[in-house]
Amino acid sequence: MFTSESDLMRTIDWNEESNSVVLVDQTLLPQEYKVIECKTLSSLCEAIQSLRIRGAPALGAAGGFGIALAASLSGAKDIESITRDLRVAAKALKSTRPTAVNLSWGVDRVLKAISDAFDVQGIRDIALQEARDIAEEDIETNKLIGKFGAKLLKDGDTVLTHCNAGRLACVDWGTALGVVRSAIAEGKEIKVLACETRPLNQGSRITTWELMQDKIPVTLIADSMAGWAMRQGLVNSVLVGADRITQDVVFNKIGTYTHSILAKEHEIPFYVAAPISTFDFKGWEGSTKIEMRNPDELRFTGCEQLAPKDVEVYNPAFDATPMENVTAMITERGVFYPPILLDEVLV
Amino acid sequence: MFTSESDLMRTIDWNEESNSVVLVDQTLLPQEYKVIECKTLSSLCEAIQSLRIRGAPALGAAGGFGIALAASLSGAKDIESITRDLRVAAKALKSTRPTAVNLSWGVDRVLKAISDAFDVQGIRDIALQEARDIAEEDIETNKLIGKFGAKLLKDGDTVLTHCNAGRLACVDWGTALGVVRSAIAEGKEIKVLACETRPLNQGSRITTWELMQDKIPVTLIADSMAGWAMRQGLVNSVLVGADRITQDVVFNKIGTYTHSILAKEHEIPFYVAAPISTFDFKGWEGSTKIEMRNPDELRFTGCEQLAPKDVEVYNPAFDATPMENVTAMITERGVFYPPILLDEVLV
Repeated sequence: MFTSESDLMRTIDWNEESNSVVLVDQTLLPQEYKVIECKTLSSLCEAIQSLRIRGAPALGAAGGFGIALAASLSGAKDIESITRDLRVAAKALKSTRPTAVNLSWGVDRVLKAISDAFDVQGIRDIALQEARDIAEEDIETNKLIGKFGAKLLKDGDTVLTHCNAGRLACVDWGTALGVVRSAIAEGKEIKVLACETRPLNQGSRITTWELMQDKIPVTLIADSMAGWAMRQGLVNSVLVGADRITQDVVFNKIGTYTHSILAKEHEIPFYVAAPISTFDFKGWEGSTKIEMRNPDELRFTGCEQLAPKDVEVYNPAFDATPMENVTAMITERGVFYPPILLDEVLV
Repeated sequence: MFTSESDLMRTIDWNEESNSVVLVDQTLLPQEYKVIECKTLSSLCEAIQSLRIRGAPALGAAGGFGIALAASLSGAKDIESITRDLRVAAKALKSTRPTAVNLSWGVDRVLKAISDAFDVQGIRDIALQEARDIAEEDIETNKLIGKFGAKLLKDGDTVLTHCNAGRLACVDWGTALGVVRSAIAEGKEIKVLACETRPLNQGSRITTWELMQDKIPVTLIADSMAGWAMRQGLVNSVLVGADRITQDVVFNKIGTYTHSILAKEHEIPFYVAAPISTFDFKGWEGSTKIEMRNPDELRFTGCEQLAPKDVEVYNPAFDATPMENVTAMITERGVFYPPILLDEVLV
């Protein structure tokens, strides 16, 4: 039933033959399923910036593979020089999506691992191995998130989701959609209401596509229909991913906060599914800068002009959902109910 | 300052020379401002169905002019025959947008007026005069709605609106945006946050365009950003139009209900601006059928494919906001606070 682990490649991977990072270009979906090769750091940075690869866990792997790629490309002859090259690469990678904590996390994890190396080739080998470990662990993590989260879904439930916290947001399986996959794998019938997720339509383009690949029933709605769908009794729970989780809030795709209010009003559980790597317990809502994206994302959709070219636009990429609106957080260490204590999650 | 009454024609009007209904084709905005001539009833029905003309009050005028057009085109020689022709025309007009109460109201008002006629030409003359009266009264009504509603807005306020309840939804001036225009005409500084209003983007295409024509400050947001904008303190009130108001709910563009929940959560007033002709006091939420629109509206945006071609879609045109979420209703008879009593409004 599930093609995700067989027919399709992982969202991001390392190509042994060409020494490059390969990834599914998600901006072309659903029209075209195309794998692109990033042979330079700048092409990988461009792919991250342009959302060819997106989704918190996938960006963790992208950060890791990015450092591995920089190490592979560096012509440095000594440890000091290659370390300097990798610091420059780390900065370039992190600046592509400043709110995405996993991207920095993946970069830093590989940077830390290479401190064990004795020479330049050792750095290259360790960087690649660590990036591969991140990718492997992501899949294991998502399977665990799925296992724990599946208990929260009942046979016959319809889950409303926003953006894409699916296999294409991860290396494979998915976080929020991984929970749906695991529940279905346990024999439950689960339907998904996918919010289109303006302005970049990750819901229409990616979530619907990947669920249809797996023959999971999915219905597309406009973001603004969420409240009405809940009032009509069409939603049993809301299940989203996260880009950064601080002590006080969950940063996720713009629109998530609105869904959390709607869920509260309709007494529907609001679940966040995310790996521990998404947690930033030193951060707070106020200490996190929200990325403002290009106004043209709202003025145009592809070739189609939707608004006057010079109209003023407010286009934050993320919003922050206060922890009190979150029913439970689903992680690879189990399900946590707010208030979440640092030592409870990080044990 | 206001070009709406000078440079641009009314949203819909009668062309004396060609005996046709002329209207601004709103599907071409903001790229092109084009006036189309409907010389046949079927072309007018197509224009209504395709949303070339839309907005509750404008549809009232369209219904009226539609009957006038049918009377002008009818080759009938006696009152009985032309009345039969007009009944067929009425049915065709009403069926184009079944939820729009003003369309039926405009049709019925003209049908009622012609009962005073003595001959076929009298029917034609009365139908046209009555349709023209509807158009004139719409502008007067909107100016009154504006006058009463302006008192609810404070100098410096930012108003969040959904869809287009502006001059292009009416014959001129607008209902919700008429309130903004009247407040500005009184010397207040008012800004507008326009929700793009998926899936047909009346907010991006029409509301931003018409406000920019009048140099009224407007910022475009995605519908899903409304909650976040409120949490950031960017919104002082929500102001929307209505397609049908029953004793228990306000039917308006899908997404309105979601905004009403968000406004309640953030303790922001939620105002509905609509003429008395929008009230259907015999109806209830349950007795009103909500129009389901073409799934392709969410699968495509113009030439741009946004989702798999065969994805299942839920696409209601309207939703129903319960009266308890409405802070006040702004009408041409004054401002009413729910619960609204029939005899209070209809006096």
